[in-house]
Amino acid sequence: MRKEIRLAGTGGQGLILAGVILAEAAGVYEGKKVIQTQSYGPEARGGASKTDVIISDQEILYPKARNVDILVCLSQKSCDSYLHDLVEDGVAIYDNFYVKNCASNHCFGLPLSVKTRGKFNREIFMNIVLLGALSEITKITQLDSLKKAIQSHVPAATLENNLQALDLGVEVVKSTH
Amino acid sequence: MRKEIRLAGTGGQGLILAGVILAEAAGVYEGKKVIQTQSYGPEARGGASKTDVIISDQEILYPKARNVDILVCLSQKSCDSYLHDLVEDGVAIYDNFYVKNCASNHCFGLPLSVKTRGKFNREIFMNIVLLGALSEITKITQLDSLKKAIQSHVPAATLENNLQALDLGVEVVKSTH
Repeated sequence: MRKEIRLAGTGGQGLILAGVILAEAAGVYEGKKVIQTQSYGPEARGGASKTDVIISDQEILYPKARNVDILVCLSQKSCDSYLHDLVEDGVAIYDNFYVKNCASNHCFGLPLSVKTRGKFNREIFMNIVLLGALSEITKITQLDSLKKAIQSHVPAATLENNLQALDLGVEVVKSTH
Repeated sequence: MRKEIRLAGTGGQGLILAGVILAEAAGVYEGKKVIQTQSYGPEARGGASKTDVIISDQEILYPKARNVDILVCLSQKSCDSYLHDLVEDGVAIYDNFYVKNCASNHCFGLPLSVKTRGKFNREIFMNIVLLGALSEITKITQLDSLKKAIQSHVPAATLENNLQALDLGVEVVKSTH
């Protein structure tokens, strides 16, 4: 079992932190082998941001994502850039406010940003909302593991909001699919 | 030019954030190709934490660190584990409170934790202090690039302290070497 997950969008959406939390949930709290990578370079200058998380039962010999099983897109550009890396039976999860066009076999267009703004008046917790949705759709990690990882990575003052954001992500999936 | 930098210590020392900031400084603000990786798994359960940053002028085909050029150690265990990955003319930078034994050709034992506690009464900014020291010793990135990357990754309320921590890291090197 080797699963490649890519979180992609624009800078400032907190995707790297989401990747760190996802990796820690699977690696530290579920005993999987996990490698989490982000690349920087000319492509990051345009404001693009992406992180890859590879989760496996066995040692990960090749740490670069080649065949993405789960793609999360928070911008149209990221969808245009990475959809072709998705395997045929892969799952694409996208925000249906920022992404208008995302054609793959298994697509979940979700109101992540709209629901985040509705609850928190801003998008600051959207990265955690997407983790809740990702967990609910793919079962790649358990919600409890994500909660533990969140606790070790967000300031105490925002912990309660972050945990609510995680639950919101689960609800968004339940209420729309 | 391909340089491999490893930041290693224990969980909670903020090393992953330091890696993210270093990678963004070189990749986004200096136009280098950069890959930043962290591994999770059984070894992370013991509280160990490490992140690798590979900085290159050219595309990075193999994204795993094999020959570490610069090793930063904030715990004795990390020094014991990773010193053998350091190349012969590599540079080891370590905190001389947490690490007592670090034998390599080019060693910099620095009072990072002591100076951080002295200035801030706690160690919360030690990850940024080490980036200042790293930049001063190795010139792997410019201080200005690190400042820009810090601004996009720390809460506004702590920005001033983080920038002071960066300068403190530079001073620690200047005053001890």
